[in-house]
Formats: sequence, C-alpha cells, structure tokens
Amino acid sequence: MATTVKRLAILGSTGSIGRQTLEVVRALPDRFQVVGLAAGNNIKALAEQVKEFKPRFVNYITDAKNPDDIPLCAFLPVEDIAHHRDVDIVVIATSGTGGLKAALAAAKAGKTIALANKESLVAAGEILINEVKKGGARILPVDSEHSAIWQCLHGEKQSARRIILTASGGPFCHYTRAKLEKVTVEQALAHPSWKMGRKVTIDSATLMNKGLEIIEAHWLFGVPVDDISVIIHPQSIIHSMVEFADGSVKAQLSYPDMRLPIQYALTYPDRLVNTTLPVLDLKKIGSLTFEPPDTKKFPCLRLAVEAIKAGGTYPAALCAADEAAVELFLVERIKFMDIPSLIEKTLEQHKNVKHPNLNTIISAGIKSREKAFELSGGSSEC
Amino acid sequence: MATTVKRLAILGSTGSIGRQTLEVVRALPDRFQVVGLAAGNNIKALAEQVKEFKPRFVNYITDAKNPDDIPLCAFLPVEDIAHHRDVDIVVIATSGTGGLKAALAAAKAGKTIALANKESLVAAGEILINEVKKGGARILPVDSEHSAIWQCLHGEKQSARRIILTASGGPFCHYTRAKLEKVTVEQALAHPSWKMGRKVTIDSATLMNKGLEIIEAHWLFGVPVDDISVIIHPQSIIHSMVEFADGSVKAQLSYPDMRLPIQYALTYPDRLVNTTLPVLDLKKIGSLTFEPPDTKKFPCLRLAVEAIKAGGTYPAALCAADEAAVELFLVERIKFMDIPSLIEKTLEQHKNVKHPNLNTIISAGIKSREKAFELSGGSSEC
Repeated sequence: MATTVKRLAILGSTGSIGRQTLEVVRALPDRFQVVGLAAGNNIKALAEQVKEFKPRFVNYITDAKNPDDIPLCAFLPVEDIAHHRDVDIVVIATSGTGGLKAALAAAKAGKTIALANKESLVAAGEILINEVKKGGARILPVDSEHSAIWQCLHGEKQSARRIILTASGGPFCHYTRAKLEKVTVEQALAHPSWKMGRKVTIDSATLMNKGLEIIEAHWLFGVPVDDISVIIHPQSIIHSMVEFADGSVKAQLSYPDMRLPIQYALTYPDRLVNTTLPVLDLKKIGSLTFEPPDTKKFPCLRLAVEAIKAGGTYPAALCAADEAAVELFLVERIKFMDIPSLIEKTLEQHKNVKHPNLNTIISAGIKSREKAFELSGGSSEC
Repeated sequence: MATTVKRLAILGSTGSIGRQTLEVVRALPDRFQVVGLAAGNNIKALAEQVKEFKPRFVNYITDAKNPDDIPLCAFLPVEDIAHHRDVDIVVIATSGTGGLKAALAAAKAGKTIALANKESLVAAGEILINEVKKGGARILPVDSEHSAIWQCLHGEKQSARRIILTASGGPFCHYTRAKLEKVTVEQALAHPSWKMGRKVTIDSATLMNKGLEIIEAHWLFGVPVDDISVIIHPQSIIHSMVEFADGSVKAQLSYPDMRLPIQYALTYPDRLVNTTLPVLDLKKIGSLTFEPPDTKKFPCLRLAVEAIKAGGTYPAALCAADEAAVELFLVERIKFMDIPSLIEKTLEQHKNVKHPNLNTIISAGIKSREKAFELSGGSSEC
C-alpha cells in the first residue's frame, strides 16, 4: 500500500490542540505535510513552528507585536487557508466561536475537517452540517469524547440508540455548594486528568464543557438530545460509550492524551503505530468508577440541554454568554458559581430567532456577550 | 429493507446455550425458523422444544429413554443436520469435543457457524479454520468474550495489536491456596456472575475456561498467543477488549447475559431491539475493577498457553484431560486443586504429533482422557 502524504492546515496552531497536532506530525513525519498555520497573537511560538514545519501560508493577528519574526511565507486570510486546493485536512483548533467561518469555508470546499472547535457546531450546527453535506465535506471529531463515539460507531450499520458521554467531573466534583462558592481561578485551572487550554479547563470545572459536547454529539451523530446521557467517570479512561439497538455497549479507552484522538482523525481510517503514545494498563489503574452528575451543583449541563432544545439562536447565545462568563471569572470579576447564574440570566433575556442564518447567529452571539458583561455589572469587555 | 427469515439448526439445544438460543428465537419470532434440533439424552426437554418450534429434523442419543415422546420429525445424524441445504446458520452449542465433527461438516458446506463450542477450535483450530476458508464458510463467535472482540474489531481495517480477555476470576479469585484445597463441588458450581453449564462453570473456577479462550481467540482472530493477555474483572461487565496499532482500546460492555452474544451472532450484521434483554446502567454498577490473574494459584491458564505454543496434538490432549479432570471432580473422585495437577501430569506424558489430521486429533483426545483417568488412580470412566 502506497503511503499518501496528507497536507494539513492547522488553525489555532499555538494553542493546546494545535501544539499537540504538531507533535503527532513530528512523530509521523512521512505521513503529513504542514502547508498552513494560523495562530492568534503568539507570534514567537508561531515563528518557531514556521521555522520547523515550513508551511506555505500563515495567518496571525496582524496588529500583533513583531510579525517580522515570521519567516517568509504567504499571509492568507484564515478562510482562504481553509479552502485552499492544496489542503487535504483542515484542523480547526481555535477556541471559542472564532472557528466557525473557517469551518464553513472548509465545508463549502468539500474538505476533510478535523474539528476540535466545539463552539462552531454548538452555535451553528444546522448550518455547518448542511454545508458539509452540500459541499461533500466531512467532519472528523477531535474531541476525545466524540472521537470515542465515532470509533465505537465505525463499521456499524445502525446509528446509536444512546450515547453515553463520560465526564471527569472536573476538580470540584464532590465539593459542597459552600466550597464551590469559594473556588479560586488557580484551583479551577488545575484539572485532575486532562491538560487543556484555559477556556475548556474552566468549562470542564463547571460541566459546561459536557453540556456543549451533548450539543456537538447531537449534530455530529444525528442522535436526539434526550438519547445522550452524561456519566461522571473521574479517571477519564473511558472517553465515551455507545449503546446499540440490541443493548450492547461499546466504549473506547486510553490514557487521557489528546494526541490519540488527533492522530485518529488525521490517519483515519488507518491506525498507525506512534511509539510516543502511552499503552493503557488497566491492571495499574485498578478501578474505573461511575456516578450520576449533580445538575443542581453544576447547572451548566441543564442550561446547555435547555438551549439546544429551545433551538434557534439559543445555543449561540449560550456559547457567547459562557465565553464572557469564563473571561470574567479568569480576571476575578465574578466568582466560580456566578458563571452558571450569569449564563442563565443572560439566556433569560435572549430573544430567540428560529432558523437563523449565519449573520443572525453571529449577531446573537455578540448581543449575548454584551448582555453578559452588562449583567455582571461591568464594562462590555474585560 | 425486506426482513429475511434465517433458518437455524441448533446442536445442543437442551443445554444452557441451546435453551438461551431458543429464548432469542422466541423474542424475535419473525426473524428465525428452527429447522433442526439436536440434543443428548434429555428427551423430555427436547420433546417440548420440538412441540414448540416444530423443526424438520432432530437428533438425540438413540438409546435414550422414551424417544417416542419426540413428535413426528425426521431423525438425522448431527453432521447431516449441520450441512443440510435448508439450514442457514448452524448453532454449535454442544459442550466438550463433541461439536467438532458437526463444525467440520458445516464448514465444508459453507455454512454460517455460530460457535459456542470452544473445544472444537481448541482441539482442531488449524483444521477447522482451513475447512472454513476452503468451504467459504464463516465462524461467528458466541462466547461473550469472543463476541466482544468481534464487535470491537468490526469495521476496522487492521487487526488487533493486542487482545485483552476479561475473566470474572470465578468464585475463588481471592482464596488462599489452603482454602482452594478444600473447595467443594457445590461451591465450584456457584459462579458469581454467569449462569452456565456445569463443565464451563468448573472451567471458570479453575481459569481453564480463560486458557481455552486464549486458544480460541488465537484461531478466530489470527492474533499470536503472546499478544493475548488476560485480566481479572470480577463484575463481568466488560466482556473483552481490543488494543489497536495506535494504542486506542475498544471494549464491549453489557450485563452478563449470554442471550446478547447469541443474538448478535444470529442477527449479524444487524442489531435488533429485544425488549427482554437488560439495559446497562453503569451508574448503578458504580465501579469496574481490574487485577492481574494469579497463575500460581490457577495454573490452568499457564497450561493452556503452553499447550497452544507446543502445538500439534497438545491442545486436543489438554481439552480431553480437562474434560476428564472436571468429570472426576464433579463425582468427588479428585479435589479441586487436583484438576490442574492431573491435567499437567497427563500432558507431561503426552506424545505430540505435529500437523495432525482429524483422526490423530480424536485419537490424541481419547488417549489423553484414558491417561487422566489412569493417573487419577481410578477406572477409565466415571
């Protein structure tokens, strides 16, 4: 079998997922060629990546300091990188709603999209899935949970009867309400099992991350929200499960390491040996535990389910309100338990638009963000 | 999609797997037609099955009492039922080496074989797999562990890098050596998680069952024995696991209920709703635990691995010595811990034949059985 080299564009290359994607490329150098890199304003890290991987195109925030550090290669808008004819797989690893436009450009161009950005599916799932179908594109999930579901469904004739998303429960799973009120930023950023970016780490601690993943799973696998359940599994070894029509359940397991789901998306349908990845030993782990989530202490899970059931622009408003609330928490302008209540208050004032187009969704996000800042009693930005 | 009715022959219909196969047929009456039933000497149970399912052919031990109770249908040799043109799936659920000739007849006739009898693969794996390939037949595993592996491999392009067979550990997993010496027949027949026939229940208690399953997995999935490991998992919820080239592990889970793997083999590649099957709830189970097996206290695991590595007629001798030892234990002529030592002594005296034909294999089994009875100090039969 001839080895084909897949040409990658990595959007969000200096973030946690972006860097781990480049680690996979480093481990399997004969399989991939990096043709495009896009970052935010971490020019120093991007310059190093450009030197090592020699992409043809880059993108960064143009008012960033020292863009002269970037070695000679073409500067292209993110959307132009995403739909460039010389790109086979677009890895969308930007955080927040910023990945949406690039995802739509890649979808329209019929690309393979390795999607790590959950907000684009949450805010605009219907539009994105429709563009994927129309453009002949495909979305390969990179989130560990959705990669697990995808791996379990692979080869099955039928869809899932039920999806069981596992959640680590975050660092505060068994905290009392009183203790949750006093959580510090430092505590919330110390996730017990996963090393991730700041936004998703806080979302994990509030369980909003799992709420967004319910919505993501709904769009990716066409399963009704009521058939997607969440189970707390603190060891983060089973990354999710699928229950089939006959009651048989399949699970995917590994140590919590994002390089595995990233690699699976990039090499699919092949599985390649990567000696830098750890080998699971359940004898050493000893015990895998499971318990129901406490939606009273962690209301974000309920808020996410309510938002997708309400539909329209609610999920976009949820995403934006959550982004604002997490930013406010990270600069210590609100407390940990203010995150869900601020999101809930913001959504209570949201005016829903059914069957929104892209501009309506973006506009709903902007308004929701402003409303969240306003309700927090502060200015419109951190 | 038109529903096709699959025509079944069930060999060993009055045993544990046979009866549960008929339960699946009862739950999905539009999907299956029972055309053949074969039993041993439990004529009463067979007569009831014949009345209910109205097969065209039966087989039973002809010197059994009251064969007149069997309602009118043709008596055929088991092999003739197994290769009959009006049979789509042959369920081989006889225990011991008795299933081998029927399995070979079905393989030569290109049938789909739902194989619950592990001894035929253990004793004559190479011959059976070759006949399956030549005849265009296929073996679908019914054992819960091999069904789990098969489900995990389904749709994957590549084979397993490693198979992890789970074992309940049986009722004596944490017994001391001294306590194991005093185990009674009644205790050994009380399996903590599975309801099974007497032979396989004792094999579970000695871990010989898991040893035979290593050999079975080797032949079914073409994986070297050194890449098949065993892990003790007392809850019997994860039925086995597959590790792939990239280190990703897939597992199949359900409550311990043989009807699920039986149904999967009968309906494959479809999965059908069966409301009589339980729905897994990991929140209620709470914890899944794992530990290494103790091959010093349970030497049967080591004996099985040594037998398949030695090859030739050793696995057939192992099966027969184990059958004899279990029979001797069940009639209280030897103690529980005599089972592995009797098998080991029998195998020490075995004269191996490389690349045996069927007759050599059957003859090796008979000699090994006789040798085991002889070494136990008793007559050649119980």
